[in-house]
Amino acid sequence: MNIRFSRRTQALSSSAIREILKVTERPEVISFAGGLPSPASFPVDAIARASARVFARQAQTALQYGPTEGYGPLREWIGARHRVAAERVIVTTGSQQALDLLGKVLIDPGSPVLVETPTYLGALQAFSLFEPVFCALRSDDDGPLPEALDVGLAQEARLLYAQPNFQNPTGRRMPLARRAALVERARELGVLLVEDDPYGELAYDGQRLPTLLSMNPDGVVYLGSFSKVLAPGLRLGYLIAPPKLARKLVHAKQAADLHSPSLAQLLAFETVRDGLLDPHLAAVRERYRAQCEVMLDALARHMPPGVRWSRPRGGMFVWLTLPAGVDAGELLPRAIARNVAFVPGAAFYAGPAAVNTLRLAFVTVPPARIEQGVAILGQLFAEALARAA
Amino acid sequence: MNIRFSRRTQALSSSAIREILKVTERPEVISFAGGLPSPASFPVDAIARASARVFARQAQTALQYGPTEGYGPLREWIGARHRVAAERVIVTTGSQQALDLLGKVLIDPGSPVLVETPTYLGALQAFSLFEPVFCALRSDDDGPLPEALDVGLAQEARLLYAQPNFQNPTGRRMPLARRAALVERARELGVLLVEDDPYGELAYDGQRLPTLLSMNPDGVVYLGSFSKVLAPGLRLGYLIAPPKLARKLVHAKQAADLHSPSLAQLLAFETVRDGLLDPHLAAVRERYRAQCEVMLDALARHMPPGVRWSRPRGGMFVWLTLPAGVDAGELLPRAIARNVAFVPGAAFYAGPAAVNTLRLAFVTVPPARIEQGVAILGQLFAEALARAA
Repeated sequence: MNIRFSRRTQALSSSAIREILKVTERPEVISFAGGLPSPASFPVDAIARASARVFARQAQTALQYGPTEGYGPLREWIGARHRVAAERVIVTTGSQQALDLLGKVLIDPGSPVLVETPTYLGALQAFSLFEPVFCALRSDDDGPLPEALDVGLAQEARLLYAQPNFQNPTGRRMPLARRAALVERARELGVLLVEDDPYGELAYDGQRLPTLLSMNPDGVVYLGSFSKVLAPGLRLGYLIAPPKLARKLVHAKQAADLHSPSLAQLLAFETVRDGLLDPHLAAVRERYRAQCEVMLDALARHMPPGVRWSRPRGGMFVWLTLPAGVDAGELLPRAIARNVAFVPGAAFYAGPAAVNTLRLAFVTVPPARIEQGVAILGQLFAEALARAA
Repeated sequence: MNIRFSRRTQALSSSAIREILKVTERPEVISFAGGLPSPASFPVDAIARASARVFARQAQTALQYGPTEGYGPLREWIGARHRVAAERVIVTTGSQQALDLLGKVLIDPGSPVLVETPTYLGALQAFSLFEPVFCALRSDDDGPLPEALDVGLAQEARLLYAQPNFQNPTGRRMPLARRAALVERARELGVLLVEDDPYGELAYDGQRLPTLLSMNPDGVVYLGSFSKVLAPGLRLGYLIAPPKLARKLVHAKQAADLHSPSLAQLLAFETVRDGLLDPHLAAVRERYRAQCEVMLDALARHMPPGVRWSRPRGGMFVWLTLPAGVDAGELLPRAIARNVAFVPGAAFYAGPAAVNTLRLAFVTVPPARIEQGVAILGQLFAEALARAA
């Protein structure tokens, strides 16, 4: 059987990195590669109790088909949290699905799609299937530069995708002034902003900056997720969109999976309705803050001169920049040979890549192993720098 | 904000029928329109017990990210049930997602996609987004005619989509000889078959005919679902595909939702692993058989001469054909005014529609209401026939 694939499948290939990283499942490997939240942070007892209540009282609703838009009370809860009408809220099967639906509804082959430099790999993957032309906006430690968004780029752009909070991969956060300037510039030029915010609740000091959504609800699609605040195995995310766009997204979602699992939606609502979320998040933030501190201490102790890194104030990632001329992708196999894994930064660039960068995730690795793993990486990088000199 | 939509969103419109059918949520409406399984058939206790076990023993696995292909033990169980290697099995977020992934990976704008006459509306919706040209194969009460699949059609066709068991909407089942002839013809002409089988376990006599998959595993993609055998609120389906195609589908799924909910997968596996499924299915089949009998009896008593209908031997649907010249779509608003709903047949045609047809779903309506609803429809159709005469 000679299967005829669609043209867009050419964008689908198993990356060399993904293949290399498969070995990180071996227990002897210290992996800074995965983007998984710490399972120690899951509110297991609360979700188990919620599950027992759902099966006792609402089993038939939890097991039956439901509305494509999502479970009404959960949409209301999300709407109230973001001060928008529940009609704008669509529950999605993880926020990855929101990216897929946005790609379907907004992107034609050749459409310009604007992203940060660097940007989230999963968004590049989701959008790629719809064959856009990515334009990487010049960015600094505060996020994309508003002045990089010019009239020419804006003309045909279908969306500008950004993660303002503790971005994956850099860990950077857009300050308030940058947010305001970016929203204003996008409004002026008529560019739809997609604000992807899986880590917004994970500021170590618990302070939230205003969302882009709150600054211009009719020009921003906001993507939220329960993966990092409750548990990713529920595969629950949501999007908030202007009504005209929300209607199209609902139709696209109906064709994609009819609706997100009713059981997971009822469980999530039952878990958060009594105000459990805020004390739970306080505990998660403290755990992640402590992990981050261990990582930053280890980096300070073990990295050779010339290596720089971000100091995240929330989230799960540190971003390292090696001296120019050193290729982190080439170092990965050597690191894995010494049982340490990371993700080379090149994967996160839509435009020309800074190959001397890499991402370290720190929330699932026990402190002693962080220390050990960073020491090994420091040694490896020092050797590479000595060779390059 | 002037949102620029993609060209494919033109295929996304809220159908007039969907709007009309929204009123069927009113409790006074006797709805033969929905395709929902009966909630009385959900094994609530078994799933609740499975849930308690999962939270007690595997909570962290159930709540953490999992592999894109699906939960290993569930894939093994599915593979064993269909006598294929687990490597060919991908767990999907409902079998609707399998349709979306197949569309993504196989269909380019303008690609020919072959379907039955009539065919499942949800498949038309899912595939439409990828802008194929649908070709409706001539079909009879046994399914699509193998001789309708000619060399010209086969040349560029990306797939032939069929539901061999108790098809939605007609309720018809492909006999063994037709299956063999269709598989042989497709093999000869190099056309990939997509065998969508949500109702295969719902034969009232419990007898399964061989799947198309079993006749040519390398030329068939099989879609299965837990929606009708366990509960749709879990949103769990699966597909079985030749390895080369399965690999592409896994990459497409990763971009679509990373993976299907871990919790639902562990729950389903925990529910079926001890052999619960077969006795449970026996009870569901008996319930649906009895409901079907009530429906067929009522039709025999209340339908005016000239109306014909299918006699399903499984599944959830009866298909009515009114005399030529009567438009079921025009009768729907009048039926709803009398508090009875159905789905006009025209929605299920990719080519020219037989507007004198309609679908009745019978598994969720209590017997007394079936009797009452069919009596009202019989009266309505008799009036329409009198006017047409």
